[in-house]
Amino acid sequence: MKFIDQWLRKEVQDIKAYHVPSSINMIKLDAMESPFLVPQDLIRPYLECLSEAALNRYPDANAEEVQQTLRSLMDIPNELDILLGNGSDELIQLMSLACETGDTVLGVEPSFVMYEMIAKFTRLNYHGVLLDENYQINLNTTLEEIHRVKPKIIFIAYPNNPTGNAFNRETILTIIKESDALVVVDEAYYAYCKDSFLDEVSNYPNMALLRTVSKIGFAGLRLGLLIANKDTVRELDKLRLPYNINTLTQASANFLLKEKSHIVANARIIVNERGRLFEELMKISNITVYPSQANFLLVKVDDAASLFASLIESRILVKSFAKHPQLKNCIRVTVGNPEENSQFLEHLKSYYG
Amino acid sequence: MKFIDQWLRKEVQDIKAYHVPSSINMIKLDAMESPFLVPQDLIRPYLECLSEAALNRYPDANAEEVQQTLRSLMDIPNELDILLGNGSDELIQLMSLACETGDTVLGVEPSFVMYEMIAKFTRLNYHGVLLDENYQINLNTTLEEIHRVKPKIIFIAYPNNPTGNAFNRETILTIIKESDALVVVDEAYYAYCKDSFLDEVSNYPNMALLRTVSKIGFAGLRLGLLIANKDTVRELDKLRLPYNINTLTQASANFLLKEKSHIVANARIIVNERGRLFEELMKISNITVYPSQANFLLVKVDDAASLFASLIESRILVKSFAKHPQLKNCIRVTVGNPEENSQFLEHLKSYYG
Repeated sequence: MKFIDQWLRKEVQDIKAYHVPSSINMIKLDAMESPFLVPQDLIRPYLECLSEAALNRYPDANAEEVQQTLRSLMDIPNELDILLGNGSDELIQLMSLACETGDTVLGVEPSFVMYEMIAKFTRLNYHGVLLDENYQINLNTTLEEIHRVKPKIIFIAYPNNPTGNAFNRETILTIIKESDALVVVDEAYYAYCKDSFLDEVSNYPNMALLRTVSKIGFAGLRLGLLIANKDTVRELDKLRLPYNINTLTQASANFLLKEKSHIVANARIIVNERGRLFEELMKISNITVYPSQANFLLVKVDDAASLFASLIESRILVKSFAKHPQLKNCIRVTVGNPEENSQFLEHLKSYYG
Repeated sequence: MKFIDQWLRKEVQDIKAYHVPSSINMIKLDAMESPFLVPQDLIRPYLECLSEAALNRYPDANAEEVQQTLRSLMDIPNELDILLGNGSDELIQLMSLACETGDTVLGVEPSFVMYEMIAKFTRLNYHGVLLDENYQINLNTTLEEIHRVKPKIIFIAYPNNPTGNAFNRETILTIIKESDALVVVDEAYYAYCKDSFLDEVSNYPNMALLRTVSKIGFAGLRLGLLIANKDTVRELDKLRLPYNINTLTQASANFLLKEKSHIVANARIIVNERGRLFEELMKISNITVYPSQANFLLVKVDDAASLFASLIESRILVKSFAKHPQLKNCIRVTVGNPEENSQFLEHLKSYYG
């Protein structure tokens, strides 16, 4: 028997490695990325700013300026504090490490897969509560499960990935009030959603908000943030690895994320395109399109596996949930730029025409 | 009682936040950084290469090209594989998460503090075994402790931080052979050391090597690597958060770390300067300088706290261990550029003159 197989704890042995499909030369509509590059007129001053970074030195350990930049970009109130992560994933892991082994993380199903994966990584239990057939939270069932399994953390994505809908606001507030858990509302898609819980955080000490710049044009930077009450941030910060946000990400954030008008304008284009995609997909028979508050649409078809394969042949990459029990025959398509969306639409029209 | 104080596990409440001292306008000799910036003639082509990075997309999840770049830079044999981390810290955490709660991490004392910190972060026990009065490993005691506490991981920094010495090679090999633990030899300072365990890794399935680019000019990139046998890397990789190495770090590594001749030349300057510093410090009475295989020197004085304060007044920042039980009255000074080292020397000569 190999050393590592006897050394490694069994739960990790059983994990299947996270698979990222190849996307070379593909129209990439699988990962909720923004289609917009850094605007041409910003590139030179941006590079100038990067040229001043002293790569031989460790980064600012607290990334104070990045915190201020994000505070301005997202209008984060002064009474809340910010904890930065190398993507939201690192912050999910950090909160999970704040729990005792054997504590339970509760999520709704289907939702972002990393809540469960990271619970496993950090030796916590994961308990999923099914959404109803319209992908809404069933409040009674969920509260019962919360009282039964007594989760230490509850993750609620708002809007939810991969379903795209924003759950009922009162339902989430009731969960926060009725639970002793730290309730983390994950607003990764906040830029595309009409609503937010940002103004509620200071009302609930057991609440925290996750955001990221990954969906607004900067997935490559790996910058996520937890927004919470000051006591919570101060204590959780003890678990943060020093220097977790590197120098180039800090310099880039401090230049690029100050261009709020670009970011807002790009988000508006995506919201408009989402509307167009939704309307056009509704016209195709045998397709169900779910309303979305995010930069993607969930689409239910007759045979997702065949559709996915034909899309791949046309070099269009989406996410297929062909065999997922609750998402059977669904695909998730990220809203791309107008041309990409038109190509996707043309493909579906001809496929089902 | 505040929510977070009742919610957070006690061990984390008791952690003191990692303190990074302010270094604005200081001669920074506290953090083992290289004093050398990116060479002037490389800056334009480097920025050109950064300008091609698509920040709106997620990074290459496996950072394949970075692995190849590091393989070339460090002459890593083909039979070994590489696991990349957002600094070595993330890899130490990842290995710690591979253990069961309650497993023990063993380190020698004094050594790199993050082995113990991260053990706490990940709910493991930490057991420190004291080095002898010359900061060498006491093999008999260490083996006894290994057999008694049965550690799951043993961390040995080679050369050791903050003492600077490289432990006896046979001693380390004996520990690897005699232990069932994963023995991690941390070669953060490999560029300044005459010796390495790189050629031994393939001989021992329970061995892994840590390296980083932080000490060779690129602390700002946050790029560490674990070098181990293929089975080990494949299994540990399951615990890696996807996209942990961001796009700009990948692009930078693939440009800057291909400039091996620069990196080697800079390391040679530091080794020469280390020699000069050592010789000159030896001439000062009431000072003990310890031989070093790293880019820093440990210096024992009569009153480290006073010396540290007077250095700060001259805007020279070093690391003081004034009250550390095993490093009483020691300071650790990073080897800077020739001018910085001369300023440090002048200060000490006048202070003790």
